[in-house]
Amino acid sequence: MKHLYLIGMGPGSPEYLTVQAIETLKRVDVFFLLEKEGRGKDKLLAMRQAILELYRPEGGYRLVIAPSPERQTLPGGYQETVRAWHENKLALFARLIADELQDSEQGGLLLWGDPSIYDQTVSLIAELAGRSGGKFDFTIIPGISAVQMLAARHRIPLNRVGEEILITTGRELARADPAQIHNAVVMLDGQCAFQHLRGQDLEIYWGGNLGCPDETLIAGPLDQVGDALIQTRDRLREAQGWIMDTYLLRRRKL
Amino acid sequence: MKHLYLIGMGPGSPEYLTVQAIETLKRVDVFFLLEKEGRGKDKLLAMRQAILELYRPEGGYRLVIAPSPERQTLPGGYQETVRAWHENKLALFARLIADELQDSEQGGLLLWGDPSIYDQTVSLIAELAGRSGGKFDFTIIPGISAVQMLAARHRIPLNRVGEEILITTGRELARADPAQIHNAVVMLDGQCAFQHLRGQDLEIYWGGNLGCPDETLIAGPLDQVGDALIQTRDRLREAQGWIMDTYLLRRRKL
Repeated sequence: MKHLYLIGMGPGSPEYLTVQAIETLKRVDVFFLLEKEGRGKDKLLAMRQAILELYRPEGGYRLVIAPSPERQTLPGGYQETVRAWHENKLALFARLIADELQDSEQGGLLLWGDPSIYDQTVSLIAELAGRSGGKFDFTIIPGISAVQMLAARHRIPLNRVGEEILITTGRELARADPAQIHNAVVMLDGQCAFQHLRGQDLEIYWGGNLGCPDETLIAGPLDQVGDALIQTRDRLREAQGWIMDTYLLRRRKL
Repeated sequence: MKHLYLIGMGPGSPEYLTVQAIETLKRVDVFFLLEKEGRGKDKLLAMRQAILELYRPEGGYRLVIAPSPERQTLPGGYQETVRAWHENKLALFARLIADELQDSEQGGLLLWGDPSIYDQTVSLIAELAGRSGGKFDFTIIPGISAVQMLAARHRIPLNRVGEEILITTGRELARADPAQIHNAVVMLDGQCAFQHLRGQDLEIYWGGNLGCPDETLIAGPLDQVGDALIQTRDRLREAQGWIMDTYLLRRRKL
């Protein structure tokens, strides 16, 4: 039996690891680090390595670094693009588990934030476990997500009394009915979809690179802070070639 | 200056504490424990005390235990009931901070799960900080929520590719249009609101007392497992007088 731990590492700094995550990564024989292309890749890799140096200082594990498959836009549209990308990731995980993880060994994947929110690694690994005929299994170790960090840093609850919380994407937000937005946490928004929601009496609570040394917060009525936010976001992204950000849109109370 | 830390303790077991939470509770001078009425209260208090014994074995802190205000149903309806309950909680926090926390001391509140999800403590404490004229401030330490534990234990992501996630209450679910439910995480549902959603081709992933020794999981098509779920839930609640549970409803893929 081979076993893989999908370990939520929280947003960036080792201080967000849980005791469960630390105990788990002490038992891992092989860590798989997926390397993304682009200017920020060294930093993302460095953060994972900092965690290993802190909690596995004696070594005694193998480190397998593999390039993460790129998402390539296909003529069939978004669903087609994502499907092909996931197939490539699935093939990569299958190869890593077959070739780099020996029987009775325990593998580890350090995942940013929480493995259950907008990260399809869980689905891909579950598919491989299902296909394995009982020879491969996995465990999820939850981690602090950027959504929680956003609320903690702004010192707000995600919802007011009895209200719902919607976690969505920039893509979905662009199609949403503004009147239906009460508490919407938006992730994966490279296009600043909030700029189409001006004049709707919404407040925005934005966080860039949450949990990192250059963490940046902006909050206020969307109509007033929206432009400054886009400028700040551009500047942060330019500085290191990438940005991770998320925000809450909330209807103002009358 | 007085300072209060709202520390997310995760769902029940000390292993879900983050490094940040542990470092924070080592600095606290006074812990406030709010005691709920009912058969389960000893257990909830015991879990907090177990955390203190583990991470503050040398003592050196004060422990202030206060009865948590009860929610009393008022003739004015739900909003009125909640408003009065929050006023009572606000008065309690005001008194505790005034009388039990000295200048330059650091207080701590160990909150179940994550402080930002369906817990209005943050709003109440923020109101007191605003009123204090700079003499009282607070910090939020995020914790693993039951929502994340639910996904981790069932080994599923909360959403499939590109889909939204709705976090809602039993109360709101009972009023929802079933056709609009894609990934709905339901909290605070004492009435098993899911039973009104049979015949809608939904799957349910349910977790009772997540992270506790009697943690119980049930998953499957709602139409098939709904009745057994209600029986299991009743049995668990009877056993100790209370239950904490949450579930994900997900539309089945065609």
